[in-house]
Amino acid sequence: MLKLHGFSVSNYYNMAKLALLEKGVPFEEVLFFGGQSPEALKLSPRGKVPVLETEEGFISETNLILDYIERTQPGKALLPEGVFAQAKVHELAKEIELYIELPARACYPEAFFGARVDDAIKAKAKAELLAGIATLKRNGKFSPFVAGDSLTLADMLFCFSVDLAYAVGKKVFAIDVLEDFPQARELLERFKHNPNVQKIAADKEAQMPAFLEMVRSSKP
Amino acid sequence: MLKLHGFSVSNYYNMAKLALLEKGVPFEEVLFFGGQSPEALKLSPRGKVPVLETEEGFISETNLILDYIERTQPGKALLPEGVFAQAKVHELAKEIELYIELPARACYPEAFFGARVDDAIKAKAKAELLAGIATLKRNGKFSPFVAGDSLTLADMLFCFSVDLAYAVGKKVFAIDVLEDFPQARELLERFKHNPNVQKIAADKEAQMPAFLEMVRSSKP
Repeated sequence: MLKLHGFSVSNYYNMAKLALLEKGVPFEEVLFFGGQSPEALKLSPRGKVPVLETEEGFISETNLILDYIERTQPGKALLPEGVFAQAKVHELAKEIELYIELPARACYPEAFFGARVDDAIKAKAKAELLAGIATLKRNGKFSPFVAGDSLTLADMLFCFSVDLAYAVGKKVFAIDVLEDFPQARELLERFKHNPNVQKIAADKEAQMPAFLEMVRSSKP
Repeated sequence: MLKLHGFSVSNYYNMAKLALLEKGVPFEEVLFFGGQSPEALKLSPRGKVPVLETEEGFISETNLILDYIERTQPGKALLPEGVFAQAKVHELAKEIELYIELPARACYPEAFFGARVDDAIKAKAKAELLAGIATLKRNGKFSPFVAGDSLTLADMLFCFSVDLAYAVGKKVFAIDVLEDFPQARELLERFKHNPNVQKIAADKEAQMPAFLEMVRSSKP
């Protein structure tokens, strides 16, 4: 059986978990916080979460985990037919990761963990984040899903990145990054009614106190 | 025929170009600098280079362009057989992009274009870049290629990222990021003797003066 290593507060972990739940693939969750210890680096070369354990070995990097699951597991298709159409879904997923998740992530310490982020880093992140939101608005289909009328891997990225980017906008920059983007707001709302997303949110909430305590105690 | 839109100074453009040249796929080069004009954003949702024009439409993001080329074009295989083995090549490619190219890129303005980069941004980039180099050392095969005994898509990322990261280390941080990484130095040296890499380097050199003039004239 596939084993998903990671923790329920991690948004990347939850992208992979949602794909497995939506496809109905049986899997085991293994608690793993990543990090730079020799043990963690044996599982994940960069010490990141999640890691997928397969019969052939470990895979890191969420978009590759998603693609591996899709290409090897039965259940609901999360990619369309055809190499070009699949490339377009991966393109949307990557744009969300690179141009929305990553700049928002640079501000997570200030938005969520009571730390300060340097002004130059925030200014860079804000410009990139706004350009990333504009990119998604330009390239996304939202009919009603990110890549069209079916749920795809791009939605996994969307569901667990755009919510946090919205929170970063509000908390760090006092702006509503989705103000002119009703399609994205509606899709986020739709996911709140998805039972698998609800389960993931409950698991996250249950783990949050212990996670915050860990973050606090690891500070210098 | 496939059309590759971009410009010869762009390292991402050159990754796609090397894959096409190595496979022996005929393609047309179309000069495109990206940017945020409405015309550019029609080709590339984030205004980035390169863009691959296919009979079905445009594809952005280099790793997806590489994968599309590999999955649709004849010629030398740049991915191994098997879903897991392919995921491991993509994992290496993505680690090079995210953890080496992107932090190095944050310093390109200072390393190559006579601008100053903020100290906080440089400190963050340096820590990430060193962690990225350590990741590649840990996960790369270098026997002699990044993912094993054959040239793969991960080498396209390596060839046109690690050279620039090395230059950033020297110019911005006065460190040799490959000091304890002879396998990477040897592979960079090997690529210098590859005729396709030599052609790409010559095309880059030919375009450099016009490109630098454009960068200079676009400064406020």
